Amino acid sequence: MPKYKLILEYFGAPYVGWQRQQNGPSIQAAVELAAERFVGEKVSVCGAGRTDAGVHALGMVAHAGLPKDFTGDVVRDALNFHLKPQPIAVLSAEKVGDDFHARFSCLARTYEYRIVNRRQPLTFDKQRAWRISQPLNADAMHEAAQVLVGRHDFTTFRAAACQSASPVKSLDDISVSRAGEDIYIRCKARSFLHNQVRSFAGTLSEVGRGKWTKRDVKTALEAADRSRCGPVAPPDGLYFLYADYEDRNRS
Amino acid sequence: MPKYKLILEYFGAPYVGWQRQQNGPSIQAAVELAAERFVGEKVSVCGAGRTDAGVHALGMVAHAGLPKDFTGDVVRDALNFHLKPQPIAVLSAEKVGDDFHARFSCLARTYEYRIVNRRQPLTFDKQRAWRISQPLNADAMHEAAQVLVGRHDFTTFRAAACQSASPVKSLDDISVSRAGEDIYIRCKARSFLHNQVRSFAGTLSEVGRGKWTKRDVKTALEAADRSRCGPVAPPDGLYFLYADYEDRNRS
Repeated sequence: MPKYKLILEYFGAPYVGWQRQQNGPSIQAAVELAAERFVGEKVSVCGAGRTDAGVHALGMVAHAGLPKDFTGDVVRDALNFHLKPQPIAVLSAEKVGDDFHARFSCLARTYEYRIVNRRQPLTFDKQRAWRISQPLNADAMHEAAQVLVGRHDFTTFRAAACQSASPVKSLDDISVSRAGEDIYIRCKARSFLHNQVRSFAGTLSEVGRGKWTKRDVKTALEAADRSRCGPVAPPDGLYFLYADYEDRNRS
Repeated sequence: MPKYKLILEYFGAPYVGWQRQQNGPSIQAAVELAAERFVGEKVSVCGAGRTDAGVHALGMVAHAGLPKDFTGDVVRDALNFHLKPQPIAVLSAEKVGDDFHARFSCLARTYEYRIVNRRQPLTFDKQRAWRISQPLNADAMHEAAQVLVGRHDFTTFRAAACQSASPVKSLDDISVSRAGEDIYIRCKARSFLHNQVRSFAGTLSEVGRGKWTKRDVKTALEAADRSRCGPVAPPDGLYFLYADYEDRNRS
């Protein structure tokens, strides 16, 4: 059965999340249904990450086995045709070896959290960013974020519902940068705990407001205590950017 | 009666256009209602331009007289409060002299038309751009667009419904540029005819596809014949960017 690597872009607001669930429409179910309509039989689609309700992706990676051999471009166009009019697009599809697994072969995942820092309400960016009206100091946020880099027990930044076997993870990189009204928090790690990036974003927003210091972030991390986390940022601003694999294809 | 200059941002998709109409919600009516809720009596709001159904603005200028004296920031925040949850934001409000008129004092209007040039369907940019899947040559579009600059009879690029007294207008400037998948067509003039920018965008898209040449655009312009226009681009990609006034405040 030929296997395809898909790169997906989606606007997550109308969905219960990536993963198929009983309580509403998911991105996974939408892509599986599009694939079933294309090939005429059930198809299973596996993603590199399980984004939450309302979380977006600019480069989610997934794999799917199809019963027949098609070129990647045919798969891309056919899935896009059957996905209409949903806000999900297959950016690319390419045939991969049988050993490729979107989740288990993934070496690193990169997320970005977007804050729009302005007093006026959002118009075009509704459900696409977290608006904070109080002026934020992005440099202080970046500085404080650096205490999170490395291998730590991230219990403080982990949702109670997290299913990960261990709260110990390695954060490769985190940066906070401003471009006009926009503040971007970008994080890279092999894997993340449930709500980890949103917990970082909410906590760092407190630094941006001047309520928390870099030392407060360090103390909260070291406490390994969920009650020491800052507010958890809403899903609206979170984007799965891309996933890295051994072939160094930056997806 | 103190007069205020408002700068407005709005996502136009849910509206019948700027102007108050019987057949559906308009941006003008929404702002007037917000102002009425704020001051407790009817307020009339006049805009620099009348954008069509589905057309957006990043910097529409309007004026409104209010029965009492407030600071600009109070007006901005109060209108934004009463506009919720609509995708309309007052970016700024400032007190102006009685002789200021958003429409009649306006020296130039700048519009931008946004094309997303990609094969995949739109997700985040649905209703926010015109997707064209065939690769477009933006340089050729820019080159051809230059024949439109200057004072011309723009009958070819004018909707049948246009209420302007004359089809003769001066186009100050038009440029076409590409940034990744995005192609921006930016136009500046004292005033525009109905559907003029969308008629330009549709016609120039034919140049981008290689179907029309620069000479074809010139011939169509000189024919002063509506039937010689290319396709009229959809409203989704059109943005009112800003309006210029004598004080050189770039709105």
